[in-house]
Amino acid sequence: MTEAAPVLIAGEWSPSSASESFEAVDPATGRRLGTYPVSPADEVEAALRAGADAYRLLTDVDPSLIAAFLDGYADRIDGALDDLAATAAAETALAVAPRLREAEIPRTSDQLRQAARAAAARSWVEPVLSPSAGIASYLAPIPGVVCVFGPNNFPFAFNGISGGDFAAAVATGHPVIAKANPGHPGTTRVLASLAADAADAAGLPPAMVQMIYRTSHADGARMVADPRVAASAYTGSRSAGLALKASADVAGRPIYLEMSSVNPVVVLPGALAESGDRIVLDLASSLLLGSGQFCTSPGLIFLLRSADGDQFLEALTAAVSATPAGTLLGSGVMDGLIGARERWSAAGAVVVGSGPPGPGRFSYPNTVMRVDAATFLDHPEELQSEAFGNLSLAVVAAGIEELEKCMASLEGNLTATIYASADGSDDSAYRQVAPPLRQHVGRLLNDKVPTGVAVVPAMNHGGPFPATGHPGFTAVGIPASLRRFAMLQCFDNVPDHRLPPELQAANPLGLVRRVDERLTNEPVTWQPGAG
Amino acid sequence: MTEAAPVLIAGEWSPSSASESFEAVDPATGRRLGTYPVSPADEVEAALRAGADAYRLLTDVDPSLIAAFLDGYADRIDGALDDLAATAAAETALAVAPRLREAEIPRTSDQLRQAARAAAARSWVEPVLSPSAGIASYLAPIPGVVCVFGPNNFPFAFNGISGGDFAAAVATGHPVIAKANPGHPGTTRVLASLAADAADAAGLPPAMVQMIYRTSHADGARMVADPRVAASAYTGSRSAGLALKASADVAGRPIYLEMSSVNPVVVLPGALAESGDRIVLDLASSLLLGSGQFCTSPGLIFLLRSADGDQFLEALTAAVSATPAGTLLGSGVMDGLIGARERWSAAGAVVVGSGPPGPGRFSYPNTVMRVDAATFLDHPEELQSEAFGNLSLAVVAAGIEELEKCMASLEGNLTATIYASADGSDDSAYRQVAPPLRQHVGRLLNDKVPTGVAVVPAMNHGGPFPATGHPGFTAVGIPASLRRFAMLQCFDNVPDHRLPPELQAANPLGLVRRVDERLTNEPVTWQPGAG
Repeated sequence: MTEAAPVLIAGEWSPSSASESFEAVDPATGRRLGTYPVSPADEVEAALRAGADAYRLLTDVDPSLIAAFLDGYADRIDGALDDLAATAAAETALAVAPRLREAEIPRTSDQLRQAARAAAARSWVEPVLSPSAGIASYLAPIPGVVCVFGPNNFPFAFNGISGGDFAAAVATGHPVIAKANPGHPGTTRVLASLAADAADAAGLPPAMVQMIYRTSHADGARMVADPRVAASAYTGSRSAGLALKASADVAGRPIYLEMSSVNPVVVLPGALAESGDRIVLDLASSLLLGSGQFCTSPGLIFLLRSADGDQFLEALTAAVSATPAGTLLGSGVMDGLIGARERWSAAGAVVVGSGPPGPGRFSYPNTVMRVDAATFLDHPEELQSEAFGNLSLAVVAAGIEELEKCMASLEGNLTATIYASADGSDDSAYRQVAPPLRQHVGRLLNDKVPTGVAVVPAMNHGGPFPATGHPGFTAVGIPASLRRFAMLQCFDNVPDHRLPPELQAANPLGLVRRVDERLTNEPVTWQPGAG
Repeated sequence: MTEAAPVLIAGEWSPSSASESFEAVDPATGRRLGTYPVSPADEVEAALRAGADAYRLLTDVDPSLIAAFLDGYADRIDGALDDLAATAAAETALAVAPRLREAEIPRTSDQLRQAARAAAARSWVEPVLSPSAGIASYLAPIPGVVCVFGPNNFPFAFNGISGGDFAAAVATGHPVIAKANPGHPGTTRVLASLAADAADAAGLPPAMVQMIYRTSHADGARMVADPRVAASAYTGSRSAGLALKASADVAGRPIYLEMSSVNPVVVLPGALAESGDRIVLDLASSLLLGSGQFCTSPGLIFLLRSADGDQFLEALTAAVSATPAGTLLGSGVMDGLIGARERWSAAGAVVVGSGPPGPGRFSYPNTVMRVDAATFLDHPEELQSEAFGNLSLAVVAAGIEELEKCMASLEGNLTATIYASADGSDDSAYRQVAPPLRQHVGRLLNDKVPTGVAVVPAMNHGGPFPATGHPGFTAVGIPASLRRFAMLQCFDNVPDHRLPPELQAANPLGLVRRVDERLTNEPVTWQPGAG
């Protein structure tokens, strides 16, 4: 298969031995953009072998090299800004500006630089010392290579070779095998080239970053279960995520998944009265952002039945319908929306309003549907099935008790939002709906749209199953996101000179450490008979 | 089934509706000690329902009540010290003194008190604030009831209703359903009674602690997958653990498992020469502690082939054989040892020496077997299969490279130990074997036996699969062990007065918090437009 793009394995761009391939397609025009290989099992095996070798070379690597790589890679991304934006725009139909050039790419390089600082400062290792017992522990990399599967909707910030999972895995000292998303293989190829160049410049092993475009489902499942893999990270559809999870779980290998989220929004009556117009504009813009193809897109809107509520829903539908429909990432997203509308309709939802289809090859009319809360409570599964894209569902409750029941029936989500009035008139309702809602989501917002995931230490881009695989971890927010690739290593009666510097009595790195009950950067003294 | 012991469900001791039962047996004499029910599905359902109700009542409970419960329970355990030790000794054949009365029971009440302090001080919640973004996050309980399955070998310190998992689950604000180990149901019954009394005295909900003795495997698997369950914790055999894990994994519910560990020990040549006699005594005593029925019992001993090594092995075998064989916890442990010896023999190991059987009804002769490292490398799976009890395997390597290969072939373990000389003659060998060994274990010891798990913050009682289910968590060591039952909750643009006190700007609890890059107990100011 000479015409297919090469893969990056063991430090070399080599032609794939694939017998199957796929085409990258411009979703706006349907134009073919290139042919990419579906890597067969022997190519996956070669990447795993090289990744395992690279991990061995990385053991005890100076974190400053890791930081230099991440910083150098960020610089290279910024330097290639226009090219990257243009390549990704052609593959995804996402806007060059402001979306890609002003928002997503700068966010991506900033995230890589934050990860560089975390690696250099060891801010993720959480040292704990119990000097009287002669015991110390800290977080160290889970041994092995990390596999990262990127999603279709963020060609940079969540890309397997440049996004948050990649940054976290590298910052904890891991080589990465990135699986490109078939929606933007060309973008991923350019990124891989920049990454490999930066790794080389930093003096890291050639297999520090490897990239393949696609595998069979069976080979992907085998990869995440392989003993040479430290852990895997996946962002994408629930069905593919659950298949990978099942395989990794049986093998006892950690896998972190971000799978699906409908991001419920509750608009309380006081907020409707106080600032309904503003909320309409905010919500309409949020739920159409990237044609609704955000992990945190507000897909499920809860209201109390009232004249105000009906008016709000009409205004929201009008705003949504009046906005030109964007181009979707691909045919799969369009099929997903058609399926979601059918499922929701079968469960009793009706279309409130819908705009015209857009000009793109893959486009779906901006649509708002509606269902009453009693029906929602009768069909919680169907009506919470994700419609990834520009289709939203409003749920209208007869009263606050019914609304509260809806909150309790929610699946795990990344986010939820409550709009409440500033004058206190919603406070009692807030106290009723917030606690059950809080339990089902990773991030609770007030009076603000959930799209836009700030890359700050306090961020949580995670949530209860099935939004992710474990509610204790986050994919965004440094240093917390790094913890996913770490194992707890404890040293008992190990002489001080054999301890890693993070745990030595003199605290040569000047870290803040937990010394029994206290957080301090002071040195410690091992008790007699210990260490 | 009127004669079977009652179960503790929803705050009441009620007769079980069981149609099946089992007998508690004194392993020293075979004497029957009581009849206990195998709870059917409807009893498990009743416990789950009551546990879910109790969790709702615990939402926003003042942590001082949780602390009062744990402290009060610890006091009650200390107050019943002699009775508890006698009851457990009859059921397990473990010595009243020093094992139960002077070591395990005080350790258990100390652990409950440490958990009480962690609950009151919120030392586990890890607040993170990003004031410029108006975002804050912390760890909060995963909603629901926690199921704890206790092992046979520690009737107190790991008991489902008094051990480390129980303490951690309660300290994070969870009601617990404890599944007693069938090896000591009477002890567990007494503990449950003390726990329920303490919970009642602290004003906690009646279903704060519930206890059943046994379920069918299918009902146990359904329980850990139930949506009302926050998470589960299990300590025991690998086969039962993996069955529970499979069920919980499919449902996306966290489960923490401590399953098996052979705890490799490496004795380097310089250490042999320098202090072989002391190491013989230390190791013999450690591997026979509790008749070898410790999770951290050193079951696999690596040596280099030499005259010194042969002499060491002879001396170790002599010491082990000369020690009277203890009584095992039950027939299952004895069958396990018979099976392990067969598996090891079939793979090429031979018996070096063996003492006489002990007087107990269930007893196995103290035995040391031996195999060369080449054979070990040919049969890594069979020769690493756990022999839970007083049977150990010595692996003799031809040289340091072969020893290093053995290290790399190890499965995940809780601990590993390296004995190295103080004069520096082993330093080069240490540097060769320690790194591969380090990656496979949770706790690395030097010159010290692994039995004895100090309950201190820096402890790690965890390790890579299959020792546990995830290498990032520990079952012992507070506050780290509490993290297992926590979810990450993030608040974005939520007004300060609606935040939990842990995250409020003024820091009313005086906690040390991460404020972006800094750990501080100072108040913060939300930036304009945030919170």
